[in-house]
Amino acid sequence: MSSKYVYYFGKKRAEGGAEMKDLLGGKGANLVEMTKMGFPVPPGFVITTEVCKYYNEHGKTHPDRLKKEVEEAVKDLEDETGKEFGSSDNPLLVAVRSGAAISMPGMMDTILNLGLNDSTVEGMIKATDNPKFCYDSYRRFLQMFGDVVLKIEHELFENALRTIKASKGVKLDVELEADDFKELVEKYKEIYAEAGKQFPQDPWEQLWKSIDAVFGSWMNERAITYRKLNNIDESTLMGTAVNIVTMVFGNMGKTSGTGVAFTRDPNTGERTVYGEYLIDAQGEDVVAGTRTPEPIADLQKEMLEIYDELIGIFRKLEEHYHDMQDVEFTIERGRLYLLQTRSGKRTPYAAVKIAVDMVKESVMTKEEALLKTAPEHVEILLHPYFTQETKEKADLIAKGNPASPGAASGILVFDSDKADRLVKEENKKVILTRPETSPEDIAGMAASEGILTSTGGKTSHAAVVARGMGKPCIVGCSEIDINRTKGIMKARGKEFAEGSWISIDGTTGEIFEGKLDTVMPEGLEGPLAEVLSWADEFRRLGVRANADTPKDAEAAKRFGAEGIGLARTEHMFFEADRIPVVRQMILSKSVEQREKALERLLPMQQEDFVGLFKAMEGYPVTIRLLDPPLHEFLPSEEDDIRELAKDMKVSFEELKEVAESLHEFNPMMGHRGCRLTVTYPEVAVMQTKAIIGAAIDVLKEEGKTVLPEIMIPLVSISKELEYLKKIIVETADEMIEDAGVDLKYTVGTMIEIPRACLIADEIAKEAEFFSFGTNDLTQLTFGFSRDDYGKYVGDYVAKEILEVDPFQKIDQIGVGELVKMGTERGRKTRKDLKVGICGEHGGEPSSVEFCHHVGLDYVSCSPYRVPVARLSAAHAKLKSK
Amino acid sequence: MSSKYVYYFGKKRAEGGAEMKDLLGGKGANLVEMTKMGFPVPPGFVITTEVCKYYNEHGKTHPDRLKKEVEEAVKDLEDETGKEFGSSDNPLLVAVRSGAAISMPGMMDTILNLGLNDSTVEGMIKATDNPKFCYDSYRRFLQMFGDVVLKIEHELFENALRTIKASKGVKLDVELEADDFKELVEKYKEIYAEAGKQFPQDPWEQLWKSIDAVFGSWMNERAITYRKLNNIDESTLMGTAVNIVTMVFGNMGKTSGTGVAFTRDPNTGERTVYGEYLIDAQGEDVVAGTRTPEPIADLQKEMLEIYDELIGIFRKLEEHYHDMQDVEFTIERGRLYLLQTRSGKRTPYAAVKIAVDMVKESVMTKEEALLKTAPEHVEILLHPYFTQETKEKADLIAKGNPASPGAASGILVFDSDKADRLVKEENKKVILTRPETSPEDIAGMAASEGILTSTGGKTSHAAVVARGMGKPCIVGCSEIDINRTKGIMKARGKEFAEGSWISIDGTTGEIFEGKLDTVMPEGLEGPLAEVLSWADEFRRLGVRANADTPKDAEAAKRFGAEGIGLARTEHMFFEADRIPVVRQMILSKSVEQREKALERLLPMQQEDFVGLFKAMEGYPVTIRLLDPPLHEFLPSEEDDIRELAKDMKVSFEELKEVAESLHEFNPMMGHRGCRLTVTYPEVAVMQTKAIIGAAIDVLKEEGKTVLPEIMIPLVSISKELEYLKKIIVETADEMIEDAGVDLKYTVGTMIEIPRACLIADEIAKEAEFFSFGTNDLTQLTFGFSRDDYGKYVGDYVAKEILEVDPFQKIDQIGVGELVKMGTERGRKTRKDLKVGICGEHGGEPSSVEFCHHVGLDYVSCSPYRVPVARLSAAHAKLKSK
Repeated sequence: MSSKYVYYFGKKRAEGGAEMKDLLGGKGANLVEMTKMGFPVPPGFVITTEVCKYYNEHGKTHPDRLKKEVEEAVKDLEDETGKEFGSSDNPLLVAVRSGAAISMPGMMDTILNLGLNDSTVEGMIKATDNPKFCYDSYRRFLQMFGDVVLKIEHELFENALRTIKASKGVKLDVELEADDFKELVEKYKEIYAEAGKQFPQDPWEQLWKSIDAVFGSWMNERAITYRKLNNIDESTLMGTAVNIVTMVFGNMGKTSGTGVAFTRDPNTGERTVYGEYLIDAQGEDVVAGTRTPEPIADLQKEMLEIYDELIGIFRKLEEHYHDMQDVEFTIERGRLYLLQTRSGKRTPYAAVKIAVDMVKESVMTKEEALLKTAPEHVEILLHPYFTQETKEKADLIAKGNPASPGAASGILVFDSDKADRLVKEENKKVILTRPETSPEDIAGMAASEGILTSTGGKTSHAAVVARGMGKPCIVGCSEIDINRTKGIMKARGKEFAEGSWISIDGTTGEIFEGKLDTVMPEGLEGPLAEVLSWADEFRRLGVRANADTPKDAEAAKRFGAEGIGLARTEHMFFEADRIPVVRQMILSKSVEQREKALERLLPMQQEDFVGLFKAMEGYPVTIRLLDPPLHEFLPSEEDDIRELAKDMKVSFEELKEVAESLHEFNPMMGHRGCRLTVTYPEVAVMQTKAIIGAAIDVLKEEGKTVLPEIMIPLVSISKELEYLKKIIVETADEMIEDAGVDLKYTVGTMIEIPRACLIADEIAKEAEFFSFGTNDLTQLTFGFSRDDYGKYVGDYVAKEILEVDPFQKIDQIGVGELVKMGTERGRKTRKDLKVGICGEHGGEPSSVEFCHHVGLDYVSCSPYRVPVARLSAAHAKLKSK
Repeated sequence: MSSKYVYYFGKKRAEGGAEMKDLLGGKGANLVEMTKMGFPVPPGFVITTEVCKYYNEHGKTHPDRLKKEVEEAVKDLEDETGKEFGSSDNPLLVAVRSGAAISMPGMMDTILNLGLNDSTVEGMIKATDNPKFCYDSYRRFLQMFGDVVLKIEHELFENALRTIKASKGVKLDVELEADDFKELVEKYKEIYAEAGKQFPQDPWEQLWKSIDAVFGSWMNERAITYRKLNNIDESTLMGTAVNIVTMVFGNMGKTSGTGVAFTRDPNTGERTVYGEYLIDAQGEDVVAGTRTPEPIADLQKEMLEIYDELIGIFRKLEEHYHDMQDVEFTIERGRLYLLQTRSGKRTPYAAVKIAVDMVKESVMTKEEALLKTAPEHVEILLHPYFTQETKEKADLIAKGNPASPGAASGILVFDSDKADRLVKEENKKVILTRPETSPEDIAGMAASEGILTSTGGKTSHAAVVARGMGKPCIVGCSEIDINRTKGIMKARGKEFAEGSWISIDGTTGEIFEGKLDTVMPEGLEGPLAEVLSWADEFRRLGVRANADTPKDAEAAKRFGAEGIGLARTEHMFFEADRIPVVRQMILSKSVEQREKALERLLPMQQEDFVGLFKAMEGYPVTIRLLDPPLHEFLPSEEDDIRELAKDMKVSFEELKEVAESLHEFNPMMGHRGCRLTVTYPEVAVMQTKAIIGAAIDVLKEEGKTVLPEIMIPLVSISKELEYLKKIIVETADEMIEDAGVDLKYTVGTMIEIPRACLIADEIAKEAEFFSFGTNDLTQLTFGFSRDDYGKYVGDYVAKEILEVDPFQKIDQIGVGELVKMGTERGRKTRKDLKVGICGEHGGEPSSVEFCHHVGLDYVSCSPYRVPVARLSAAHAKLKSK
């Protein structure tokens, strides 16, 4: 325990400061700070969070010296104010408020006007000559103390107030007279008696009971739930402080009032005061909603001096705290008092605008502006979204796993072809809703506003494709049940027919009934673009994009990508004009037949790469050789096979046999990746020819710089790489020599199998770069099939076995350890080994920070996540300073 | 390079010794050694293997000093024999023989009678007065030199010999006269001329050309292939030495001869000389097969003194070398000479018997006997086997992956039910031949002599079950193609109808046409039991068995298991009387329904454990909770579902829906292991009740010591274990308290997921023991699905990407690294953590040695592999001394 439990602030002295939030709570630390700055803060003192911890850990008792320190502080307040605690002449009244290190708005308790009793209220009347105000304050205190400390039903007090207002024929509290409030005091005492409770007349008893109520509130259910919901780690906090502050009164008549204000507009970020106030009122009246507060701008008309003083203080507070502030104030008979200041909450857009403006105004530095900009803000700014208000008014149907951020509305459609047709022919907006998606659904997905699936994880086909397309997507929503035959989706007992409107929030996983309005982000223009350009100044980590097409590559560049970290070549294989040739290749019975099919694919594939290289001029482009198991290119349903057999002019039996022979029990761990090209090296030869051929074309014809990186997937044995690299290098070098150009290329590997991390030193003998494929690495390290784990992940989250979804945030102690090991071992062999990551984690903030710390060279993610990655990379660097 | 290239042995001096095999080769080192022991060895010298290395690495040249050293050694030979190299009076003849550090029988070259030419042959006639012998020797030299050094077609010489024998009307070489051999010499010279080659008359040229021919033979194709086939690591060898030894002649008439003998019977191990000899012959005549050699015992009648001398030498050699010897000797005019000794090759049975006998005779120590006994010997001794001879005479149909050792014959049957019926009703012997097997095939497998599958790896269902049953099994034989409809199996172009006999060798993967005879092992009786009891004296590593039934447990104990390392509880679920209840459990719609089904399973499961505990009294029994995905307990074919629905009195649709909902894309990484019991903790409760209930029963009723170890499978997150352990401990402790017994049990986990190894320190906070499940760990570490990897493993082996099958031998640098890491990290948290392995690797020799070295406490394997594990564990300890 520290040697001091109570920190005083007032004219005499101000102990502590803004930096002592852990001990004094946010509110207390800022009250001390503002006092030191010379602002008008009523004197008071803070009982530290340490005492709260002691209280809750020692059977609700206090440390020995506390009583003495509090009594001394009260004495100091008496000296400073010239009032006396419990005096029947000129009584000192105080407010008792909670305040933890982390803001938990409204979660804990406040008691105003403490010190009043039957005798002191009379003393106060003597001192103020304002009985209405005094009885009003007394009844307020009785109400709060009864509610907060003695747990008397709050509604009982409200009822009594309503009854008296009705009997007097008035609508507002403020219209009541002194006698009415006096009568109310008596009514309230009766309520106490009926509840079997005793109102303590002794102000000291009032004070200690209130202090303990605040301490106790730290562990009440409401506070615990709030901390859990907001992921606040309880173990890092000691509890709440208690702020005991001399009362100032906004309810002393027309020259008094109270208000709340933001130093800038928290919705738009504009530099204009924003807030509201009430004349002749105490703090709780502003939020109670019985009287409508005035906009703060009106204060200029009513009390110009006070308004100017306030504006001046706002500017000074912003300069001092380097941030937009949320301030509570009270005016007592024409005098301004500040009761609280804290960083104001704001919308993502406002956050970015304020940060940028404040840098320009020299209120904050670029570093501060970057750290004030949260990755989540950027994510929301890049996708259309539903406002919280909109969602609160809507009907929630179900919740699934958020897989691609953004909001969308459309009609329910259960079939991809139908979705495609409805959009193209009938101009509908649709939400494609399916158990899962596969490559055959691509057109339907592309046509939809958003995608919803009942199975699959955050890296399932639906999720990956949706993110690549920048479309909102919710996956693995086990609450919905799609019956395609009946054309009905069931959710939480309700039925929704195909064709009815729903709305999905891909940022949160919420699904709503009907069509909700969305708000569109500005994209990478304006302040967001500016703050990201600063991120680029500070970050060490490179940021690339996963992009398969020139169109994606262009988008990636617009979002600030510095190259392509993963171009998947198989997506190109699925296109309508190519898949027949790919199928010919699969059905080949000899190397010669296969080579013939590959020869037909070569020019098409080369054309793809020409586009990528042109779009990414001067930046590296990492192209991954064929990865998926071959069965993905063939249909599995008997009817589809029959039709395809007709098209391909082969017998149904032959095609069926091939399709069956390609069936695998665990395709994720099957014949795919480099295992395919080891079996069919001619595929690697064709792809190398296409890559190098394209590079030579672009270099020769356009004179552009081309930096191809050829990536071999799924390596687990160093000889796999050795075998394929030899073939690639022979093919490439011959072409380069023949063309007589100066073209550099590198050959590297995905590191996505646990064994590859363990033997990275061996692999680095051949590999010129590593790119961690953390999607598959996570699957294998956990033994979780991402397509199946929806079956138990719900239980895992409910039973708190999994804290975070390892497919969303990199699992630092398991998968991360392998990434670290792989990087270190790889660099032991090859000091300058370039190491990146191209799994979905590459665009997730905590994972990006992790990549920075383990020394990766770059992260690569889908184009729409590039801005988030840029910002997170800067955060990582700045935080580690 | 050493300072000495030539090592002399003779009366004058003997340089080097048996310990210098690396430098002198096995033959040379033993010639020196025998000379030093005072045995009659003709004088000679050895050119070291280092010179061979130099020769092959320096463009077929010799190091400078070699010429001088060889000339000096020849001079010493001349001095010792009183003969002169190249003399036309009394010429010195030598034999030139290869001899590497590792025996490569017949793989390299030999030249006899070197030094003869047109002039020295006359000198020799003068000296011996035996022209027939001299011309015979000369023509032999011409023949060998032409063949070995000048690469003249061997058959040309044979033809000439046959022609002259025919013209003389004799059958045997030995029947020819001096003039005939003289004529043959001329014929041979003509053959040289026709081949455009020159026979060097200069003995020194003869010598150097022969030395170079031996050196060159080290890198000939035959030798390279031999080393590859026998897994001889070339990099550890320098090459072959060259042995130049004074000729002694077995072809000098009736008192001369030559022979080969083993000091014991290499087939039975009996202590009786075994071998053969020929009178009036040179070495190559014994193997040439034109004359039938006499059994060595007959030498006793013909030359008693020589025979006694030989027997005496044999005993001394065995005592000196601590092993059974394979000896070459020559008798020249009544005098015995030893030309070679080496350890004799022997059958597995003989190996074990000889080792045990020699310990009893004090010829070797127990340690030596253990190291002389190869794990492969034990493996073969425990299964019926085909002799090499039998197999050579049979027709090989195809080759697959050997999955369970032993040999079996039976008729081809493609259906499990049919196999079962044919065996039970018609008393047939069958080989169950299927694409793959599943739990439904168990009865058919149990009825079969052996199992053959066309897909799957060495740890596939077929392989694991077959090994558990101790039945021969070949899996993943892609050469066979089963057409069940036509009742035909195709293999290498041939067709085999269902019902025809085949034979399989599960030790080698060979499949033969027809019914082959097998030889039965003696089991753990006799010398094998004895040598294994010595293994137990030396090994540190414990050996347990994987056993699911009391019958298996009894077998395991007979084979020397010290407990059960893995009892799978799901195998019990598949039994006919239980599977309906298991299915009821799966179909349960509520916890209550599920608990009701579990209640019915409880007494059955408890009964199983009672049997196991009784069988394993005093030894630990590790019981693994439910592991496989639930869909394994339901049929997948529509017809089967329909039938089951009728049986279970549920609708077809409902059952189909459940079966479909359990379908997984990658079941290996799906909802199984502890993931199931996290979802359905009531299953863990039931299994705990069964285990602890059984333990209490056996303890109370029989007073036996019971050591139950409850094992949770598939843990990847420490909280999975925490969650389940709490449930188990609560259940168990309550039962133990209620029963009032003193029962100790532990709760531990399988470590079979890469992440578990990485966070083993976390896991060890809860786990009281670890058991590495290296089957799954290998799958996940490599990303190899064992059910699918048959598709590419062939290419991987052919392209030398995989050197060993990681499912057979533990992959030490990848999977092994994780085992090491898991053990170290686990023990960091819990110093006395008991760590074992229960994957199939637990019975594979190199893997057992690895387990010893990383400090595991025990290995657990199928009962039939327990003896191999016991021996390998002793080897590990002895080798590391």
